Order: sequence, then C-alpha cells, then structure tokens
Amino acid sequence: MIFSSDNWSGAHAAIGASLMAHAGGYASNYGTGDLDRKVEKKFAEIFERDVAVFFVGTGTAANSLALATAHRAGGVAFCHSQAHVIADECGAPEFFSHGARLKPVDGTRGKIGPDRLEAEIRRFPLDNVQGGQPTAVSLTQATERGTVYSLAEIDALAAVCRPHKLPLHMDGARFANALVSLDVTPAEMTWKRGVDLVSFGGTKNGCWCAEALLLFDLSKAQELHFMRKRSAQLFSKSRFVSAQFDAYFAGDLWLDLARHANAMAALLAEGITASKTSRLAWQADANQVFAILKKDVAAKLRQQGAIFYDWPVPQDLDGSLAPDEGLHRLVTSFATSADDVGRFVSTC
Amino acid sequence: MIFSSDNWSGAHAAIGASLMAHAGGYASNYGTGDLDRKVEKKFAEIFERDVAVFFVGTGTAANSLALATAHRAGGVAFCHSQAHVIADECGAPEFFSHGARLKPVDGTRGKIGPDRLEAEIRRFPLDNVQGGQPTAVSLTQATERGTVYSLAEIDALAAVCRPHKLPLHMDGARFANALVSLDVTPAEMTWKRGVDLVSFGGTKNGCWCAEALLLFDLSKAQELHFMRKRSAQLFSKSRFVSAQFDAYFAGDLWLDLARHANAMAALLAEGITASKTSRLAWQADANQVFAILKKDVAAKLRQQGAIFYDWPVPQDLDGSLAPDEGLHRLVTSFATSADDVGRFVSTC
Amino acid sequence: MIFSSDNWSGAHAAIGASLMAHAGGYASNYGTGDLDRKVEKKFAEIFERDVAVFFVGTGTAANSLALATAHRAGGVAFCHSQAHVIADECGAPEFFSHGARLKPVDGTRGKIGPDRLEAEIRRFPLDNVQGGQPTAVSLTQATERGTVYSLAEIDALAAVCRPHKLPLHMDGARFANALVSLDVTPAEMTWKRGVDLVSFGGTKNGCWCAEALLLFDLSKAQELHFMRKRSAQLFSKSRFVSAQFDAYFAGDLWLDLARHANAMAALLAEGITASKTSRLAWQADANQVFAILKKDVAAKLRQQGAIFYDWPVPQDLDGSLAPDEGLHRLVTSFATSADDVGRFVSTC
Amino acid sequence: MIFSSDNWSGAHAAIGASLMAHAGGYASNYGTGDLDRKVEKKFAEIFERDVAVFFVGTGTAANSLALATAHRAGGVAFCHSQAHVIADECGAPEFFSHGARLKPVDGTRGKIGPDRLEAEIRRFPLDNVQGGQPTAVSLTQATERGTVYSLAEIDALAAVCRPHKLPLHMDGARFANALVSLDVTPAEMTWKRGVDLVSFGGTKNGCWCAEALLLFDLSKAQELHFMRKRSAQLFSKSRFVSAQFDAYFAGDLWLDLARHANAMAALLAEGITASKTSRLAWQADANQVFAILKKDVAAKLRQQGAIFYDWPVPQDLDGSLAPDEGLHRLVTSFATSADDVGRFVSTC
Repeated sequence: MIFSSDNWSGAHAAIGASLMAHAGGYASNYGTGDLDRKVEKKFAEIFERDVAVFFVGTGTAANSLALATAHRAGGVAFCHSQAHVIADECGAPEFFSHGARLKPVDGTRGKIGPDRLEAEIRRFPLDNVQGGQPTAVSLTQATERGTVYSLAEIDALAAVCRPHKLPLHMDGARFANALVSLDVTPAEMTWKRGVDLVSFGGTKNGCWCAEALLLFDLSKAQELHFMRKRSAQLFSKSRFVSAQFDAYFAGDLWLDLARHANAMAALLAEGITASKTSRLAWQADANQVFAILKKDVAAKLRQQGAIFYDWPVPQDLDGSLAPDEGLHRLVTSFATSADDVGRFVSTC
Repeated sequence: MIFSSDNWSGAHAAIGASLMAHAGGYASNYGTGDLDRKVEKKFAEIFERDVAVFFVGTGTAANSLALATAHRAGGVAFCHSQAHVIADECGAPEFFSHGARLKPVDGTRGKIGPDRLEAEIRRFPLDNVQGGQPTAVSLTQATERGTVYSLAEIDALAAVCRPHKLPLHMDGARFANALVSLDVTPAEMTWKRGVDLVSFGGTKNGCWCAEALLLFDLSKAQELHFMRKRSAQLFSKSRFVSAQFDAYFAGDLWLDLARHANAMAALLAEGITASKTSRLAWQADANQVFAILKKDVAAKLRQQGAIFYDWPVPQDLDGSLAPDEGLHRLVTSFATSADDVGRFVSTC
Repeated sequence: MIFSSDNWSGAHAAIGASLMAHAGGYASNYGTGDLDRKVEKKFAEIFERDVAVFFVGTGTAANSLALATAHRAGGVAFCHSQAHVIADECGAPEFFSHGARLKPVDGTRGKIGPDRLEAEIRRFPLDNVQGGQPTAVSLTQATERGTVYSLAEIDALAAVCRPHKLPLHMDGARFANALVSLDVTPAEMTWKRGVDLVSFGGTKNGCWCAEALLLFDLSKAQELHFMRKRSAQLFSKSRFVSAQFDAYFAGDLWLDLARHANAMAALLAEGITASKTSRLAWQADANQVFAILKKDVAAKLRQQGAIFYDWPVPQDLDGSLAPDEGLHRLVTSFATSADDVGRFVSTC
Repeated sequence: MIFSSDNWSGAHAAIGASLMAHAGGYASNYGTGDLDRKVEKKFAEIFERDVAVFFVGTGTAANSLALATAHRAGGVAFCHSQAHVIADECGAPEFFSHGARLKPVDGTRGKIGPDRLEAEIRRFPLDNVQGGQPTAVSLTQATERGTVYSLAEIDALAAVCRPHKLPLHMDGARFANALVSLDVTPAEMTWKRGVDLVSFGGTKNGCWCAEALLLFDLSKAQELHFMRKRSAQLFSKSRFVSAQFDAYFAGDLWLDLARHANAMAALLAEGITASKTSRLAWQADANQVFAILKKDVAAKLRQQGAIFYDWPVPQDLDGSLAPDEGLHRLVTSFATSADDVGRFVSTC
C-alpha cells in the first residue's frame, strides 16, 4: 500500500527489457546515436510537428533549463505557489538562470488564475527597471493538487502570455496522466494551445530515468545544446535514455501505464467516497488523490503498512477539517495494484 | 574496431541484470532507499574510511560540484590544459561556481608539474584582490593523455596544495583504469595521498550511467546535498544508480573490467610497436593508446570500419611527425575484444 | 515642493567642499589611502567597536553583498514584502548570490512580524533538501513605510534569528533618519541588538554617492574584499567616497541633516493632520510621510509644482479610502525647506 | 614624483567645480535628469551618431557588462593576456556573465594578434558543444603596455570578428590618451572600425568617478538597463556622474588633459632615453612609459620620493635585462608636472 509518490515505483518490465536489448555493441555518444535519432523522430510524430528534444537527467533539470531559455536580467517567472519549480527544486530554476525570481500566482483547484496572472504581470511594467521584467509563465500539468487544466484553461493562460510575449512552459512531470485524463492528443494539449516548452516526464510513469525538454521554437535549439552541456545534463551513453523512451512509446505503452495509474486513483477515490469516515478533499483528475482521513484511520492504515504523506491544508480548505481529521496525498502509479487499493479503502 | 571512446560501449550484462533485478517493488526516493545505503557503505569499505557519496548524472556534474565546493569570489582553480574540466565541459565548472576561472598548468606526459603549479599559485597572492584567489587543484587520473600519476606524483601535488590550503580534486572518470594500472588500493590512490574530493566514474567502465562525487571531509556534506539538488542532479529513482554500483562492485567486477580494458590497450600498443609503419606517440599507462599512423594506414583502417579520433599534436611532439603521419587516440573498454585489436594491428 | 524622494536632492555644501579640498595631490588607490583609513576609524568610533567597512557605489550593492555573504545553495532570505531588496533592486540580491530566493514576511506598519518570521523559517527544515535552506533576514530601518523599528522590535527579530543561526542584516539607506528618530546610538541600534551587517547609506542624507557595507564579524572581511572587487564595486579613487564621509561625520553633520529632514516630515504631518481635507495614512516616524489626499487636492498641488508619488494602498488600509481619495508618499530631505512644507500644507 | 598610476591623482578643478555647481536644487533620479540627457546628447555629438550611454561606477563594471551583453552558455571571450579584464578584475567579467571564460590571445607590443585570434576562435567550432562557443573579443586601447592600436590594427581585429559575428569591445579606460595619440576622432577609433561596445573611462583622466558603457547597437539598450540595475550600478543621484562628464567635455577639456598626460610621458621617455644608465623597454605611445632602470638608480629614485611599480618582464624581453636592471612602469596623468618629470630623469 505504497501511495507516497509515483517515483517510489521502479521501472516497468518493458523499459528494463529495452535497456537490456540495447546494452551490447557500440553507439555514438552524447546524443548522436541512431537510437537517439529514432526517439527524436518518434517525439515529432507524437507531437505532429518538428520539435527539438533534449534528454536530461531530472524533471528539475528540464524545468530549470526551460525557464533559463527565457531568462533576462531581473527576470520574473510566474507559477502556482505549489508548483514544483518554486516549492520542491531547491532553487534550481533560480540557479540555472542566475537569479530569476519565481512569483507565485494562485487560483482555484491548484491552478494559476488567468486574471490574477494578468494582474501580476502588469505589476512589472518594462519602464520600471527597479521592479524587474516578466519573462515566462510555467504551469504544471497535472498540477501538484492532482487536478488537470482543461484545454480551455490552458487557452486562457496562453491568451494572457501572448500580448506580453511571455513563453508558456508546461511542467509535464505527469504529462501522460494529464493527457489520458483529458483524452486529447499531445499536440492538442501543448503547442496547439500556445505552449512553447514542455518538460516531458517519463520517470514517474514507468521509466528509470527518462526526462526530456521539448522546444517547439527550433530557433532556440542551438543555444540549448550549450546550455544543457554547460549544466552537466548531457549524458555520454545517451542511448540509456533513448532505449527507455523507445519502449515507453512502443505500442502506446506510456498511455496504457498512465491510464492504469489514473484508474487506480479513481478506484481509490471511489472507495474513499464510499467509506464511512473518510472523504475526498477535492476531485482527483489524474493519479493523485487528496483525502481527508480521521486521524485514527490514518494511524491504522500506517500500522497496516500503508505509506502516504500528510499534506498541508490549503487556504481554501481552512476550517473545513475537524480536529480529528488530517489531509493526505495518495499517489498511484503504473505499479499500483487494485488489491492494494482495495486493502486501503477497506480500512477507511 | 571501435576505439573512439570508452563511452561508445553500452553496459555490461551484470549491470543490466542488476537494474532488472531491482526494477520491481517500491523504494524510498531521492537517495534514501536501502540500496542507496548499501552502496554508500560499500564505498566506505572500498575506501577504508567514512566518505560522503553523492550520485550524480554525469562526470561533468561530479567535477563541477567538486570545484564548486571550493569556490570563493574571484576564485581560480588549477588543472592541466587538456583536462576535461577545462577542455570538454562547455564551462560547466565555471557555471556551477558562478564564475570560477580555470587556469591551465602543464608538465610532462599530460600531468600537472608540481613546480609550475607552485609558481602559478604564487601569482595569486591573497593581498592582491585584483588578481583573484586560488581555490583548488584538479588532477585527472588517468589523464587525458592516457598516462597515470604515480603515487609519488600525487604526493608532490598534494604537497604543493597543503600549505596553500587548497583542496585537491581527482577527476576519476577513468578511476578504475588508473587504479589497476598502479595496482594500489583506492585509499592509497586518494585520501592517503592528500586527495580531498574524487569524481568516481563508473559509466566509462561498464555502467549505463553511474557517477559519484566522493567527499572525505564529511563536514562539507550537508551543504553538498543542497548544491546537488540545486543543480538538478538528485535522481528521484536513485536506485537506478545504486543498482548499477551494486553490481559494479560485486565480486570486484569493476576491477576486472578495467583490467580487461587496460590489457586490450596493452595488446594494441604492443601490436602497434611491432608494426612496420606505425608507432606509439608515448607509452600507454591505462586504456588510452596514442598512436602515430601513416595517413594511408589510418585511411585504410577506417575503410575497414575502424573508428578512432585524430588528435591535436601537443607541443612536446612538435616536429616529430612526418608530413604523411597523423596522431590518433585509441580507447579500449570492457567491451573491446582481442579480435578487434588483432584486426586493427594487422593493418598497421 | 519636491517630495518625490530624498535622492532628488543634490549634495550638501560641506560634502562638496570636502571633495574640493581633497581633489589635489596624490593618494594611494583602491581604498588604501590615508583618508580611507581615517574614515574607517571614524566608523569604529561611531559604532564603538571594530567594524569592517566596505565602500560601494549604491545601496543596492551594499544590500546585495550583505545577503551574498550569507548565501548558500538553495538559500532563502527573509524580508518585508515592500523591502527595497525585493521590490526595487531588479533582482540584484538574487544575482549577487547566484540565485538566492527572497521570501516576503509581513507584519504591522511595514515591519517584519517576529512570529510570522519564525513560522516562515520553520517551513524550511534542513532535512528537506527540496525546499532550500534559510540563510539570512533583512530588515529595513527606517522602513519603506516611513516607520522605524524600536529597539525592542529589533531585539525580537534578532531573537528569532539567533537559534537558527541566521545573520540579521539592516538596510540602512535611511539609517540616520531612523537613528535620530529613536534618539539612540549606532551601537544601540545595531550590534548591541544582534544586527550582523549594516548597509550604511549616506547618499539619501546629503552625500553625492557614499554607501558602505559594515560587517561586525571581522572574520568574513577578507572574503568580502574579493566579493566587492568581483562585483565591480571597488572604486579606484576611493577618496572621493571617503572625502564625503569625512565631511558627513564631522561635527555630527549627518545627525543634523537627518534631524532636519525628520523635522520637516513632522511639520508636514502636522500640517496635513490640521488640514480640512487631508489626513495621514499612518504616523510618520522619520522622513517619509504617507498622506491620504483628495484627488482634486493632489491635482491642485501638482499644478502648483509639487512632485510626489502615488502609492499603492496596502491591504491593511483596504476600504478605508473614499473613492475620491488617493494614497501618496511625501519624502523630505536635508534640502527640504519649511517654506516648501508651508506652501504644500496650505493647499491641503 | 608619483608615477604609480593615473588613478592616484584626484580630480581636475573643473570637475570639482561642476559638481559644486550642480549640488543644489532637485533633479530627477536614476539617470532621468536633464543633465543626464544633456551629457548623453554630448556623447552622441562626440561620436557622430546615436549611441546608448550607461553610466556605471567603475571601469570593471563597464567591461563586465559589455562582455555580459554578448555572453551565451559556455561562452568564451578573447582578450590579451595582460588585459585588465583577465588580469585585474578579480573575475568580475566571469561573474557578470555567470561563467564566461576569458581566453588570452597575444601578439606583438601588448596587442592581440589577428592571426592568432583567428586561430583561437577556430578552436571553438559551434558543432563541438563540449568546447563552448566564442562570444566576444575585447581589446584595450591604450593597452596595458602603453601601446596604442593603430586604426589599421583595429580594422584587422574587426575583420576577424565580423565573419564569426563576434562583437568587438574596446576597454577604453585610457580612451582619451589613445585618441590624442592617434590624433583621430572618437568615431574613427571605434564604430567606423567595427567596434561595437566601448568602456569609456573618465576617471583616470581627471574625473573623480565617471565611467560609461557605450553601445552602438541601440537594440540591446533596453536589456542593458535591466542588466545595469541588476548589477547594482545604477546611481540614484546620477547627476554626480553627468556633472563630471559635462565639465569633462566642455571646451574639449578631456582632450587637453590627455594631451598633457601624454606629453609628460613623452618628456619622461625622452629624458630616460637621453640618460646614461636607463633606457626604454619599448616605445611609449600614450601615458605609460616602461623603463629599464639600474637597480641602484631605482632605489635612489625611491629614496627621493618617487613612487612607481616593478613590472614583470614579458617573454619578448626575456634575456635582454642585465642582472642589475629591473623593468618598471611609469604612468603620467593630467596632474603630472614637468618639474616632477625633470627631477625623475635627472636621477636616471
């Protein structure tokens, strides 16, 4: 009953098998091999357009490089206050861009509110050099609250960015979970909406270590080659990443894994809703369920071996928890079994 | 006949098997799992002392973090002019330390000369704020010229560093190759000599992606946790690194692989020396052979499928090559076969 | 009737005269001259202890270097949301420290609240590498709202910093104005309270360009010499700064100038309070008056040549302004005349 | 007999007088005042074209910002090995550009050799991401060896830069001295040759503190406003700089002061050449004389109160000094008197 995080899982068997299959022989290094090329083409196919693909080691690296491409002196990038870039990356985006400032902009259900975004951007007029200048907007899909931006919601953010010429970045650590939740294509969820850069994560969804930064504006690709190498993110044996992505995409494995994770989350949500003592904090759109559990129930679950995190109660829930209740995050993954979910909800 | 670089090889079967063996189940993330702990203990055992172990994604990351731990404002670090940190990392050490300067100091056979090092350090007296301040010395073991520092040579560099209180870093991208070449223990080659930080590379010697920065001064370890995360080098599924190292060290596999690579280099060197038209540029201590080949011989080898790099002729060889000769680097690895070597030298 | 900012004034006659008096002859450069030494000794006398004095070009430089001395990877420094370091320096503190994050912590009357500070610091436990680590606290004396921290209020912030080992920085762009407002000694307002670093500003109080960063912990002084030079803040003809400070301190000119500025602010506040249509937004402790003016009054004043800024209405004033009212900042300086104040209030 | 450096002088009387004249009244801050505008127009007039003018506090700041405008990830800028940017700025250019590398390229008489420059640039092909990428070339006019690039020599460097699209920066800490030495116009010495950025120094030539970065490509000006503020180089009372420049340019004072300094250097050179025991190391083009003095002569001069620096013997002078001789730098300024020169040479 491990619901702590989707990165507590290991790798899907097909990912491992692909690594084994590509372990022998020789391949050109530093991203110049045939398999690297094949995977890049697959990305173009999936996204239905030319796209520059940069493998990196971590989602933090993809996010930080993305924001660094947009950075200028005194730059301010906007994101949700719970976004990974501002809350969980130890200042990596600031480091990669030599001092960018991240400015939190909130809204409902863990999403950036377009009106508030517009208002915040306007606080940095370009003729006020003291204040700094806006440089980018980063949204997280699926969000840290387990919700998913609808296409219309992404449209709304892109519409705010456009007149200010701010690139729109999507942190897609859980890209696949959001995609299958919306049941749309990668193109529809990204560049067709006005998204310029995507941190495309495979790790949380069944890979060992497969992350890529995607650029739709190819004119920035050359510079990013230097930026990636300069930040020590260019793997010498890059086929160890491309072998993972090769298997990840084959036969739409990635979508199947995400669908499974989401289905397990739905099952969990259903069970919690049906339980006598527990309830959902809000609706789960993808593979993260936020549940309000009685403290004794949580303790009992942990005694039975369940692992899951306490979660700080956000402002909009203030006052809605009883003193004997706590908020918790439950994350499912490709590896979650219906049996584990069943055992969990039976105790709720 | 692939002699272009040891990172053109894939992964040794045992490395892949270990990844597969650890693919299932759940493990605590971000370097906090049981396997991570086991591997850290193994490092302590191998180095015969407490050592702080930081897994990172690339050798460049290990080197850059190592130099960053020593950085101060206006800092100048010293290395050989052909060192990877100065020649092949696109300014990553400068980036990680926000503007460190790398100052080349040469000597014989691709090694830093201790007298020249002392002279260069003295050019930065601490009361001359304009000049900057010395912060660290980095040596590469084995060197980029395929030579290996003897224990006495490391002692000599450490003796220069000590009175200036400069930490001594060892770029050990080919640590194992140097170690078996000297036939000494890891402790003897590092901290017993006065080495403070080691970039410990496993990738070139049979892993997919297994690099670690080792610190012998544990008081700096806490800060490095933040530095690593801040530079986007903390893997979420860290067991994919520890699983590699676990197999790498089991039954001294790492030493066997390095011995094989070195033996193949020796065989290559022997064959070249025995050939009619080709010769060694200088003695090969580990798994890199530098050969002077007739241009038509090199062309013929390439026609037969051999892959190897041209190499710039260093100053100390100036004038010793005939117009129809070229200098080339030939690198062997765990994957090199005696058959490949035989085919190569038969054409020399 | 110029109340826009105290840096719209020029230089006091005595400052200019000192520059003229020291214009001839030769002096050792880069802060090594006799006059530099004399001024440093004067600082020690004024502060009643040894203090390391670093002349810099701007208050922004002093603040940024101060925070940079405390920076560590993933570092988070705390300040008020209206503090100059976060609101008006275009990311300089972040730049000087390669990516520090500034976290706003508010309280009453433009001051950091000690309880909120404690709570914010606790959000960054050192075992959560993802979140980053707290590094420093910066308070502004006098504040951007024209209020002045009492000695007890500084004590309270220092008491929060101490157990977390966070250095406490004072942005003293208006140091003198705060000092004479409290009627205490420099020692009492700083190190006796637990302040570790002071940005000591002379520019706003009658100098052309005289700013100094003061360190009470002399062990950090050597490193700061390199940090200052590295950030291009070491003046070659440093006597142009020391000549200003020499006159500034002579006969307590600096205190007289600050007393005058504060007195003019008090006169302004008195007149506004006594006026029929205008009122104070809150009490003025030093040389900044925040007034609520009828829109037609403000327009009339501007027609008559008055210059002053509109000010955003802070949350704690929300709803307390009528639709025909606006909030404005009025700043006095050594150059403000009672006549100007009189003309201003006669229109209010 | 102070020949240590031109920044040991104070300020010319006219500079001080201008500061006094502008000390009263109010002026808009942060570079937005009428006098700032007037001086900017004067720059445009002097340079015979539109030019963006950025006042900064030090020559190091101007140089560092200039190189930072050109920086890209893994960037390498080229300069002479004795250039101030690489030898005397404590890594400020590297800091301002977050890790640029400065690569020394030498030639005859302290100048960059165009052929060597071309060769060095070619060592960084854009398809070799490991090596980094060339970003800029910086020449010093007059050089640190007291020589002056001829117009043809600047043309030659610009011709190397152009096909590589590298901006050419001129460190003009001694701009005026070089200009009157060549007897050309500012336009002829800069943008008409292909110079893109100029660090225009007034401090060494009679100002207290008056330095400006000049950009001929106005499209980069907006970004530089943020870069300057972000690096804490935007003065609030900017008229203290513009008042200096205003007097500096009035009646061509700046040219007169430089002519005087150069004439004093010529007198010094003449006297040394005519002396029995001393000689010139090389011809002095501007206001720096490099002299080879007998050790006892140097000692005697110092006994008589002369101040001047020993200078490291460059490679091209190797072996040409007798054991009882030393190399020394003698710098003249606007403040040097013929009497001082006379007393100096009478002892040579």
